[in-house]
Amino acid sequence: MIRITLKDGSVREYAEAVKIRDAAASISPSLAKSALAGEVDGIVRDLDYKIEKDCRLNILTFNDKGGKNAYRHTSSHILAHAVKRLYPEARLAIGPAIEEGFYYDFDLETPFTPDDLSKIENEMAAIVKADYPLERFTLPRDEAIKFMEEKGEPYKAELIRELPEGEEISFYRQGEFVDLCAGPHVPSTGKIKAFKLLSVAGAYWRGNEKNKMLQRIYGTSFPSQNDLNEYLKRLEEAKKRDHIKLGRELELFTTAEPVGQGLPLLMPKGAKVIQILQRFVEDEEERRGYQFTRTPYMAKSDLYKISGHWSHYRDSMFVLGDEEKDVEVMALRPMTCPFQFMIYNSRLHSYRELPVRYSETATLFRNESSGEMHGLIRLRQFTISEGHIICTPEQLEAEFSGVLDLINYMMDTLGIKEDIWYRFSKWDPANRSKYIDNPEAWEDTQAKMKAILDKLRIDYAEADGEAAFYGPKLDIQFKNVHGKEDTIITVQIDFALPERFDMFYIDKNSEKKRPYIIHRTSVGCYERTLAMLIEKYAGAFPTWLSPVQVKLLPIAESHHDYAGSLADRLKSLGLRCELDRRNEKIGYKIREAQLEKVPYMLIIGDKEKESGTVSVRSRKEGDLGAMAADDFINKILNEVNSRAK
Amino acid sequence: MIRITLKDGSVREYAEAVKIRDAAASISPSLAKSALAGEVDGIVRDLDYKIEKDCRLNILTFNDKGGKNAYRHTSSHILAHAVKRLYPEARLAIGPAIEEGFYYDFDLETPFTPDDLSKIENEMAAIVKADYPLERFTLPRDEAIKFMEEKGEPYKAELIRELPEGEEISFYRQGEFVDLCAGPHVPSTGKIKAFKLLSVAGAYWRGNEKNKMLQRIYGTSFPSQNDLNEYLKRLEEAKKRDHIKLGRELELFTTAEPVGQGLPLLMPKGAKVIQILQRFVEDEEERRGYQFTRTPYMAKSDLYKISGHWSHYRDSMFVLGDEEKDVEVMALRPMTCPFQFMIYNSRLHSYRELPVRYSETATLFRNESSGEMHGLIRLRQFTISEGHIICTPEQLEAEFSGVLDLINYMMDTLGIKEDIWYRFSKWDPANRSKYIDNPEAWEDTQAKMKAILDKLRIDYAEADGEAAFYGPKLDIQFKNVHGKEDTIITVQIDFALPERFDMFYIDKNSEKKRPYIIHRTSVGCYERTLAMLIEKYAGAFPTWLSPVQVKLLPIAESHHDYAGSLADRLKSLGLRCELDRRNEKIGYKIREAQLEKVPYMLIIGDKEKESGTVSVRSRKEGDLGAMAADDFINKILNEVNSRAK
Repeated sequence: MIRITLKDGSVREYAEAVKIRDAAASISPSLAKSALAGEVDGIVRDLDYKIEKDCRLNILTFNDKGGKNAYRHTSSHILAHAVKRLYPEARLAIGPAIEEGFYYDFDLETPFTPDDLSKIENEMAAIVKADYPLERFTLPRDEAIKFMEEKGEPYKAELIRELPEGEEISFYRQGEFVDLCAGPHVPSTGKIKAFKLLSVAGAYWRGNEKNKMLQRIYGTSFPSQNDLNEYLKRLEEAKKRDHIKLGRELELFTTAEPVGQGLPLLMPKGAKVIQILQRFVEDEEERRGYQFTRTPYMAKSDLYKISGHWSHYRDSMFVLGDEEKDVEVMALRPMTCPFQFMIYNSRLHSYRELPVRYSETATLFRNESSGEMHGLIRLRQFTISEGHIICTPEQLEAEFSGVLDLINYMMDTLGIKEDIWYRFSKWDPANRSKYIDNPEAWEDTQAKMKAILDKLRIDYAEADGEAAFYGPKLDIQFKNVHGKEDTIITVQIDFALPERFDMFYIDKNSEKKRPYIIHRTSVGCYERTLAMLIEKYAGAFPTWLSPVQVKLLPIAESHHDYAGSLADRLKSLGLRCELDRRNEKIGYKIREAQLEKVPYMLIIGDKEKESGTVSVRSRKEGDLGAMAADDFINKILNEVNSRAK
Repeated sequence: MIRITLKDGSVREYAEAVKIRDAAASISPSLAKSALAGEVDGIVRDLDYKIEKDCRLNILTFNDKGGKNAYRHTSSHILAHAVKRLYPEARLAIGPAIEEGFYYDFDLETPFTPDDLSKIENEMAAIVKADYPLERFTLPRDEAIKFMEEKGEPYKAELIRELPEGEEISFYRQGEFVDLCAGPHVPSTGKIKAFKLLSVAGAYWRGNEKNKMLQRIYGTSFPSQNDLNEYLKRLEEAKKRDHIKLGRELELFTTAEPVGQGLPLLMPKGAKVIQILQRFVEDEEERRGYQFTRTPYMAKSDLYKISGHWSHYRDSMFVLGDEEKDVEVMALRPMTCPFQFMIYNSRLHSYRELPVRYSETATLFRNESSGEMHGLIRLRQFTISEGHIICTPEQLEAEFSGVLDLINYMMDTLGIKEDIWYRFSKWDPANRSKYIDNPEAWEDTQAKMKAILDKLRIDYAEADGEAAFYGPKLDIQFKNVHGKEDTIITVQIDFALPERFDMFYIDKNSEKKRPYIIHRTSVGCYERTLAMLIEKYAGAFPTWLSPVQVKLLPIAESHHDYAGSLADRLKSLGLRCELDRRNEKIGYKIREAQLEKVPYMLIIGDKEKESGTVSVRSRKEGDLGAMAADDFINKILNEVNSRAK
């Protein structure tokens, strides 16, 4: 008698060992049809896996991560199968499922062309149609190596050689094609209903620049052609919204080869958006009781040795000088914390002064490796509103809650509140060397943080091993238009650094006490925020954030004076406007202003000049017709002052 | 017959060779009395110097730089004479006149104490009283070395050894004391009427850290006790105004040993002053047609190789990486120019778009040696409003004039317009390796710049060898409270970099043309400006710049609510205020607020609470009595908005 506990808690009993596919069928025929794999006691298995003892079972479909991975992993085998049929000289490297699809790396002298990709797609369709079952088998290590060498697959042989002794070495066969693979897979190639190859890129074997450059074919697959079409449409839309493409087109930022990677140059329009954001954030923080600091971008290694960055974070830092040769070694800062702590420590503090809320518009530096840098998202230098709240243990909850309130206010104002979610990042007790070594304090602080999050009814996911080296974090996560997830904001509770920096306050009884520290930002790094806003609004920023808010378009030269005096008036009210004095047709001027995604165009001809009106075209509402200049000014000022989305 | 042309252009004739002192006597007895030295054809000589041919002669008194230097140089010999009498084992190094006095470096094991200084002063008084004549004599090189070695003066012998062959080696004798010295000197020790030793500091022999640390005694001297007393009073006042002392007392900035030298940490109050300045400058520049950029703080060496910084400025830069080992060598930027040029070059520009005026609130880095760093004045990292105007040759004059107008407006608003003067810094054709090698362009651009300066009626002094490596500069000079002169602002005309960066615009005839570039700042670096303002106002900033503008001082707890609602109202109007809720006597609260140099204190008791008034104490005008809260608000808003000094 085998007892299988299902996801909903119900228990089914089977007289003898049962395959997952049969268990699924015994639950419902529709489940059997959509089943792609099964999770047995937490491990994902093929549908053919035979359950021989009591267990928890979760039948996986495309809607489950495990099911989706099996589906796309099989898709990548079909890709490799097709390539081997068409290019028998291609050597196979690896081919996993990824977030939005799959890829396979091949070693082949001739580069794949777009034509090749459609040829491969056709061959894949044939393999799907043949509906080959995927059969799993294992071999002892030596035989496995020999098997792959005989097939002329040196990369696979290398992979097997590096597997730990005693590890089971499994293969999957479909038709004449066999691949080294841990699985799991869907039962047969016919299960793959819709797929598409997307692109080819170079990729080093094992990601190491010293190895050979291989060709990586990216693709994706879905349970129906409809799903695939929808995805491809979304991809097309994402490309249009891509902040690198729009950033160049709208002259927000540029890059320059002699400057280097990960170091974008913000052009006037991009710099303007960041200036507006920065002042907004600074003013809002000041209203909420923050005090600003301006601290240096570099320090001697001594400072980082106290903070622990020197031993835990040095590889990501830009170091100036050489410890073996130079008396003084400095480094560019990756965080502001130790600098603000120096300010706190510059004099004594009474409990009456706490909480102290420091903030700084802080530029930070991280020595990213060249493969990681991307647009305005992953940079070697970035600027962030970084702050530290130094408080008594009694104030911790209220201060944490205040930080979240500020973050929510910011995300709401920027219009991205619906696009974020929370991750509670904890340490990994199994990997202690990454963290400050004080297990008790870790557990205690994590418990405190969890209690606060629960009390504030924050809906969070937990993540082990994602903490900062000095304490647990609440991460605010955001997925960009390409589906890539990034942490945009973190809030940390720090038990370790007050100790290391010997920070204290004098309590009611004139005794020295250790404060807690909350590390926080209110809006994340400005460059990344700009990227996020470009993609969110497809470059059409809300009026209050638009680098140019109004474009005045006189029809003829006789209208330039009136347009000019209007422009002066708008500017004196703090509005950002441009006057297009070029000798061009009005239709041309309008089309250009549209491409620039300016919120308002004012068209100015004889009628407008005579009546003191403006003809307004709104980017959002279309042609609004003529209105008194004052009415337009009221309308736009209202929109700007309320920071309307 | 010898014809001597005097400063006023008049010519005097002498039948035979004549000493300067006799020529002076022949002009007027009072001149003979105040004469300290004479300038013969541009070279300063002792009064005993015999004029043997036609020349220009300028009799120097203490009011002339040459006269003052001779006077103080003699004072330094008297110091050394006294030290050798009291401490025969002291070895003499060097002892020049300096800006505000003189010093002498001694090698002596026991450190000089304040008591020692007064003993030395007494001995100096005796030497002055003895009125020893100063007698000049020369020796051949070998004899000179032997002479100094026999006197047990190894430093002097080392100096002689390094003099070029053939150079005249002169000595000055006063009583039993002889010193190696080029002169000139006043005729006798009795000429020194008033002197004072000020301090002792360590100084490396020849300024090199690898050499022995010597003891440097600083002193000063004046023609009368009155002048000396006045100077000492001024020194006392300067010490009170010293920005490092006040910066600490007013909690404007701090330093921290683990962070390092030349890297001050701005505390909330100092950061607030800079934030106000920065926004003021950015907004005023925007009003004047500047566009802002935000460019990276580092770049690959490639960029600096194009600009020429790599070959002309590298020693002052922080370099990341090692050219011999690393594929990519980067450096922190010492200037913004090449970065803004990359933005300009990111697309084509028509003549219609020019002038392009870029500005940036730019952080820059200079690898200063440790002896040079000082407070907020000489830093390893500083932030400046740095901008570049790219214009046609026809626009150069108007743009240059616009830059000066902006600078004048800034200096006027900050209240330091009376304290600055202009220096026209040119290249040094004798030292070509320091500059971009294009003599014709140098002469041409300097002529252009001179013509513009003359047309604008700028009152400037010329300085050779002070240009930037890529072009001549107009420097705006400022003397701090200690009498040390610094360049706070520079404006440069650049003919070289447009060529090196291949910058161009398309002119009316669709042809490529080279623009001119003006390098400029409007207010200089913010840290130094803060230092200047602290010293100028002795920490009592004008209201618009004060980090705290109003301090509300409730007399008892029953007044806290009224004071609190007033504080909220002031804050909502953008005023910076603090409420002193401590349970302290009102007299104590007032004294503390006075020490903080807050512009306004509002004292709030029963009477004020009942009548809705405030009792106002102004830092400047004293007790202003009670006034309606609204009246006070109008008064202070008026002051802030007009940026009253």
